[in-house]
Amino acid sequence: VTKVISYTLGELASLLKVALEGDERCVIDGLASLQDAQAGKLSFLSNPVYISQLADTRASAVILSADMANACRTNKLISPQPYVSYARASQLFDRAAVKHSGVHASACVDKTAILGKDCYIAANAVVEAGVVIGNSSYIGPGSVIGEGSRVGARCRFHANVTLYHDVSVGDHVELHSGVVIGADGFGFAFNGRESVKIAQLGSVIIGSHVEIGACSTIDRGALENTVIEDGVKIDNQVQIGHNCKIGEHTVICGCSAVAGSVRIGRYCVLGGGSGVVGHIHIADRVKLSAMSLVSQSIDEAGTYSSGTGLMETTVWKKNIVRFRQLDSISKRLAKLEKKLPRGKA
Amino acid sequence: VTKVISYTLGELASLLKVALEGDERCVIDGLASLQDAQAGKLSFLSNPVYISQLADTRASAVILSADMANACRTNKLISPQPYVSYARASQLFDRAAVKHSGVHASACVDKTAILGKDCYIAANAVVEAGVVIGNSSYIGPGSVIGEGSRVGARCRFHANVTLYHDVSVGDHVELHSGVVIGADGFGFAFNGRESVKIAQLGSVIIGSHVEIGACSTIDRGALENTVIEDGVKIDNQVQIGHNCKIGEHTVICGCSAVAGSVRIGRYCVLGGGSGVVGHIHIADRVKLSAMSLVSQSIDEAGTYSSGTGLMETTVWKKNIVRFRQLDSISKRLAKLEKKLPRGKA
Amino acid sequence: VTKVISYTLGELASLLKVALEGDERCVIDGLASLQDAQAGKLSFLSNPVYISQLADTRASAVILSADMANACRTNKLISPQPYVSYARASQLFDRAAVKHSGVHASACVDKTAILGKDCYIAANAVVEAGVVIGNSSYIGPGSVIGEGSRVGARCRFHANVTLYHDVSVGDHVELHSGVVIGADGFGFAFNGRESVKIAQLGSVIIGSHVEIGACSTIDRGALENTVIEDGVKIDNQVQIGHNCKIGEHTVICGCSAVAGSVRIGRYCVLGGGSGVVGHIHIADRVKLSAMSLVSQSIDEAGTYSSGTGLMETTVWKKNIVRFRQLDSISKRLAKLEKKLPRGKA
Repeated sequence: VTKVISYTLGELASLLKVALEGDERCVIDGLASLQDAQAGKLSFLSNPVYISQLADTRASAVILSADMANACRTNKLISPQPYVSYARASQLFDRAAVKHSGVHASACVDKTAILGKDCYIAANAVVEAGVVIGNSSYIGPGSVIGEGSRVGARCRFHANVTLYHDVSVGDHVELHSGVVIGADGFGFAFNGRESVKIAQLGSVIIGSHVEIGACSTIDRGALENTVIEDGVKIDNQVQIGHNCKIGEHTVICGCSAVAGSVRIGRYCVLGGGSGVVGHIHIADRVKLSAMSLVSQSIDEAGTYSSGTGLMETTVWKKNIVRFRQLDSISKRLAKLEKKLPRGKA
Repeated sequence: VTKVISYTLGELASLLKVALEGDERCVIDGLASLQDAQAGKLSFLSNPVYISQLADTRASAVILSADMANACRTNKLISPQPYVSYARASQLFDRAAVKHSGVHASACVDKTAILGKDCYIAANAVVEAGVVIGNSSYIGPGSVIGEGSRVGARCRFHANVTLYHDVSVGDHVELHSGVVIGADGFGFAFNGRESVKIAQLGSVIIGSHVEIGACSTIDRGALENTVIEDGVKIDNQVQIGHNCKIGEHTVICGCSAVAGSVRIGRYCVLGGGSGVVGHIHIADRVKLSAMSLVSQSIDEAGTYSSGTGLMETTVWKKNIVRFRQLDSISKRLAKLEKKLPRGKA
Repeated sequence: VTKVISYTLGELASLLKVALEGDERCVIDGLASLQDAQAGKLSFLSNPVYISQLADTRASAVILSADMANACRTNKLISPQPYVSYARASQLFDRAAVKHSGVHASACVDKTAILGKDCYIAANAVVEAGVVIGNSSYIGPGSVIGEGSRVGARCRFHANVTLYHDVSVGDHVELHSGVVIGADGFGFAFNGRESVKIAQLGSVIIGSHVEIGACSTIDRGALENTVIEDGVKIDNQVQIGHNCKIGEHTVICGCSAVAGSVRIGRYCVLGGGSGVVGHIHIADRVKLSAMSLVSQSIDEAGTYSSGTGLMETTVWKKNIVRFRQLDSISKRLAKLEKKLPRGKA
């Protein structure tokens, strides 16, 4: 049995707080791109590049901005930010959002844990001693909430999430499967023969409206806490080292790695696979392109990159030999320039 | 108690469908390389570079091609593809393949789930409502199969695998521990202050004969599905973004990251740690060397690379300073060339 | 209820085996940096750069070396290796180290498994047939120990760790959540149409005093074993391929990837996000800077790097065009040099 979620256009206009031009009784049962939409679907036009697709779409309604409205012959939802309205609409059609409440018979909830109203603790989840979970939060199957951790309201932890002890999570936080919050930071003192472990006595503080992707890991601090501020969005397989502070609304794409004691500002965007070495800071509104490595602090907003670009391997092999000689090439060039008379060629 | 698996050479020749030259009653109880093999072991020669090892091997039998047979003084299994025959032989000696069936008392299987014949649902696994699992499939301890997902026949999901809701998996698919299939794609609409989540309403469709390594993650699509075609092999800690389509028999090595909406062709090989930016395509039979970043579509089969190559850090530090000046170096060189008379030096 | 751990300075001096100068009855209830310390805290001075902070610290005691002692006006613990003594002190204050023993009612322990004295098997953990676990080891909630695996004494496996079958782990090993040990190495024989799986018949042998970070994966060997020697420390999200051997006391930082059949020496340090291609070796005491790619064997101790360094994206775009032309730039320069008379400019 597949659950169908549907709304009339009138309902959608009201829920999305946008103006409707067209048939308020038209029933919408899903979202689709302009190209793929069939009857009954709601689509959107955000990037003007695709305006020509308005002519041929079979969508029953389109979210678009007022200045595009004339090009659209079907029902319209007029929004100043069509992409944002599409995002809000998508949440209305999310079948995964359906909620239970209670504690599954197979879950292990310590008797000292405090669960808010309308929480759901799913099958085989484990909630250890002293944990506090806010109202309407969901702890997925197989997830483990370590001793003394605090989870806010309306959180959604998917299956097989792990929180270590004494972690603090705000409201409306979504953690995907495989996420590990509060594992030990990587700290050792080398005594000349072996690495002596530095116990990680801090914890992790996660703000509200944070989302963290599958198999991402955020380590607890050595002495102080690792801090993820409100509104931060972290993709899959991202690693955040101990004592980092990630500023509000920063976005970190998949497979990025941030070493320990890094402060990253607000509204940054780290491209996929990027890396940041330890003990540096990055200003607000810095963007990194994919697989960039930041090895010094960045003090100014802007877009930064590293890497050579891709080429055929045969070409690349010749060029990397020369990269090794680059300093010498530069010096030889300077020498030649000295030998030649100044002035325009 | 260690289980011993053994076959006579006659049995092996028949199971592997290869010709035997030698003693059909010789008992083989394992596989080993030519160098390490002891009596009772079966070895193989695939790369002619190692032909000299045939003289000294203590293996009781060797898989090799007809043209190498003369150099081998022990029992032989003659195969046109010795490495492939070795692969098939290795499967015969896999002790991990031993099967149970039934549902472990501690597993939570929803009453609406449908399990095929000879399935095994291991300890503390969770199978949610509406799930369908094909014949002879194995769901490992602690694994979670989300609501409405469909798993084919003869699948093997190791311990602590997570499938989200409504995921579809073909036959004979092996998922290793920590794999997460169907977590939300990373999609947000920025409204000027914060990132508004785009609910990920698509799913993930995985074909047959697919293997996915430990802690790899494949996100569900935003509107359409993420698709992994038949025969794709994905190593550990690989990330595949939402709406990607990975073509048949493509191989993706460990720690690679593919951003969203990428189409990768058939029979490609992505080297370890490689990255692909979003919204591009890669043709069939493209190979990437390790840690390459693909930032534009690749339209032609071939081998591609990026990166500088490794060098002593002291040398590297001088050269990266020059890399920053490379455009200027190039222009200064062009200027000098103009100043000098044409013709051979 | 927050547990408070405290010691007198006299007790600490004795436990850390260092000399005390000051009040042996002073009570210490935690650690802090010189800058952040309040009364009751123990701090440390390791790097002489921070000696000026001694004057203003409010710490009740400081661990430092004898030659720094004069600059310190509070209680002192005199250590020849202050950072190592701080590491040992941190372990004394680790609240996570508090132990239980027994088997949680919800854990599934096979009747053929052998558990040492004072082990604890936590909620919903699974211990399969034939497993042997040494004294005082802890298996966290949701962790799975596969058939026939052996775990030494005083190990700590956090929540949701997975060991496959027949893995061997030494004493005093800490595995963080999401770790997967013994998944299949990535081995296939291509038969011209499809990849035929090579069953991975070896296992993983982990020495003693090893720590492995969250979501790291270590694959089992194809024929022989993958080996992690004593004292190796591996950070989060690291991938170690099949048949690798990692030498004693080597440290591998987060998100690094080591392909198959690599031998890495002793006392190496792999920077975060570094990569090592397959079938090569790395000598003892090699250091790699972050995101370096090793594509050939390294025979000599030293520090190695790759990559271009970071720059503004506008600058970078110009330079990567030139990188593609680098071999030609080098040749054109050589040609010019030939045209000009030798001798100093």
